[in-house]
Amino acid sequence: MKLVALAMLLVASLCYAQDTGDFRPAATNVLDAQYPRVDSAGRAEFRFKAPDATAVKLNFWSGPKLDLAKQVDGFWTVTTPPLVPGLHYYTIVVDGAEVSDPSSHSYYGGGKDASCIEIPEAGSTYYSPQDVPHGQVREVWYHSDVTGTWRHALVYTPPGYDEHTKVRYPVLYLQHGGGEDETGWIKQGHANFILDNLIAAGTAKPMIVVMANGYARRAGAAPPPAGRPFGSPEMMKAMQEMMTAFEDDVTKALIPFIDSTFRTIADREHRAMAGLSMGGMQTFTVTFDRLDLFSYIGGFSGAAMAFGGQTFDAKTSLHGELADPTAFAKKVHLLWLGVGTDEPAMMHTGIVNLHNSLTEAHVQHVFYESPGTAHEWQTWRRDLKDFAPRLFQ
Amino acid sequence: MKLVALAMLLVASLCYAQDTGDFRPAATNVLDAQYPRVDSAGRAEFRFKAPDATAVKLNFWSGPKLDLAKQVDGFWTVTTPPLVPGLHYYTIVVDGAEVSDPSSHSYYGGGKDASCIEIPEAGSTYYSPQDVPHGQVREVWYHSDVTGTWRHALVYTPPGYDEHTKVRYPVLYLQHGGGEDETGWIKQGHANFILDNLIAAGTAKPMIVVMANGYARRAGAAPPPAGRPFGSPEMMKAMQEMMTAFEDDVTKALIPFIDSTFRTIADREHRAMAGLSMGGMQTFTVTFDRLDLFSYIGGFSGAAMAFGGQTFDAKTSLHGELADPTAFAKKVHLLWLGVGTDEPAMMHTGIVNLHNSLTEAHVQHVFYESPGTAHEWQTWRRDLKDFAPRLFQ
Repeated sequence: MKLVALAMLLVASLCYAQDTGDFRPAATNVLDAQYPRVDSAGRAEFRFKAPDATAVKLNFWSGPKLDLAKQVDGFWTVTTPPLVPGLHYYTIVVDGAEVSDPSSHSYYGGGKDASCIEIPEAGSTYYSPQDVPHGQVREVWYHSDVTGTWRHALVYTPPGYDEHTKVRYPVLYLQHGGGEDETGWIKQGHANFILDNLIAAGTAKPMIVVMANGYARRAGAAPPPAGRPFGSPEMMKAMQEMMTAFEDDVTKALIPFIDSTFRTIADREHRAMAGLSMGGMQTFTVTFDRLDLFSYIGGFSGAAMAFGGQTFDAKTSLHGELADPTAFAKKVHLLWLGVGTDEPAMMHTGIVNLHNSLTEAHVQHVFYESPGTAHEWQTWRRDLKDFAPRLFQ
Repeated sequence: MKLVALAMLLVASLCYAQDTGDFRPAATNVLDAQYPRVDSAGRAEFRFKAPDATAVKLNFWSGPKLDLAKQVDGFWTVTTPPLVPGLHYYTIVVDGAEVSDPSSHSYYGGGKDASCIEIPEAGSTYYSPQDVPHGQVREVWYHSDVTGTWRHALVYTPPGYDEHTKVRYPVLYLQHGGGEDETGWIKQGHANFILDNLIAAGTAKPMIVVMANGYARRAGAAPPPAGRPFGSPEMMKAMQEMMTAFEDDVTKALIPFIDSTFRTIADREHRAMAGLSMGGMQTFTVTFDRLDLFSYIGGFSGAAMAFGGQTFDAKTSLHGELADPTAFAKKVHLLWLGVGTDEPAMMHTGIVNLHNSLTEAHVQHVFYESPGTAHEWQTWRRDLKDFAPRLFQ
């Protein structure tokens, strides 16, 4: 009898521990919002007010889909299993309406201002503000004759930029993914803190980082046709047109604007480009078209897309630049590929295959696999942490 | 019979005109979102997907509350009456859940990332990007010993700041309202474009504008008590503590950081402060406490709150600084008050009364009423347009 009571007590105390834990409001919450909250095991507790709803669901874009339970006070709640560390996009689905969580700050992804929750990674300080000198992130507007519009970009200037007025800096062009925009690398990725910390440690050279908007439409061009399925001829044509307009915008409007506005070293030896997902595809397309402009290249979870489903062939792909690996290694100082081990199989396999093909063709490159992470920002934060120190050395 | 047919045709064509209009996607929409859309009469058409909902409402925070009607495709729609030009916060209420519209970009207000719709003002170009030199908006982080945290601020540097490395500039500290944050003056207010355009026209002096976060809690202090009603002793005490912590943060952390980081003219003759609503109250409190630091003062829809419901008395209010109007006019070069004619009666009356009291006490000041606008951003854009040219002349 005593043993049973002890066992019950043990079960009760375990349940109690599970129910209370050490939950803290998520770093991604709006000011003073108590929910969602996260415990040290990475579990997250959500609370959403919908007094008249009949069904409320929680939809992690790269994670679990969960039903919330209605409480007597009109709030709906759920506690997740432990989540992978990093920043996770999510949506609340209330009676079929997919909306953001008013308790979360918003982060542009999936073509809208979406919710995110930050699950801390134990021991990782490289993407949070530390007691080191901080660079600035500058919003700039430049007029593009390519698009016929004012375009918005963010520019990270390293610590000391304003003080050392004679110093010129190399530049990394760093692109966001599809459905995101130029704010992603700062708001979601914390690229500024990653660079601040790497530069303070002496691991990365002080550099300017330019984050541009990856969508471009030529002046006077019609918007893409609405409602056509992905992969349809109309959509493929629209994407191709966007790609060439973006490339022209980068090379004819953005780079000249950056080089005339900031103290850059305006040559290919001091210019890098990298991007994630769609931005990785754009990076490979732009840089291999214009190796006169770039000598460092990074594809984060996206490089393989540059081949549009075609098998990579070192002799013919990428304008045949890789056919002579020795000549290529002299010309391009870094060819960098990354992918998360938990990304969708097609993405993961595509990049692993590209890595293998490059190896077989004796093309010098770096391949990095982020352990346990999906097609999400934790993968790309790690990518940048590995990539940036290899630039301009 | 023919006349009746003609009349029916006329009615039908009028209805048709009302139904189609010249609607265009709102400037506040996310990329390529077709709804909400606005016509030249200022009417807005909303469309929101909620297939399983039983009631969907549109809630303008300073405007109409409207029911949406369910369509067969699972979308809910409504067309508003003509709205006042400017930026309007709104929420969608779906089965009792108050959420943002996924079609709108988000704007921090009401303590969350909320939706806004921009209703164009015919002929107004002063708050949109024109073909003039553009300043930069810089995100900076400074460590505050007052709060014990890294704090985020935005800093507008005028066109030419980077080129003219020997030139020093005056500074305007410009504060957001309650429920908003330091991003408001740029995202909602377009303060950068207003300054760009005024500076290009030669109307305003080139100046630095600092937009700080108006919430502050002293290092180690407990968060304010949750769930206490506004006006309760606990909340009044918490607000008072936030006010003094904010003042210390501005004077002991922010201003020294700005003066050591940017090429400012670091004296009271070249330092202004203004703010809207809560920021107006904070401006009056901080500047009158520290007239050794500021000589230009602006209260946009908020100055009267600095008296905490007390009757203004020129002899005793604001530390008696206004008791000698001649001495005050020598010391403070601009005392500026503004309010929209359509603001809530208490707000409007409070500021008009303050204006009248100042006039009776012979205190030199500027009073501006924004015609037809409420406690909204169009009022504060107009305020800044009138206020900024009066600075540092």
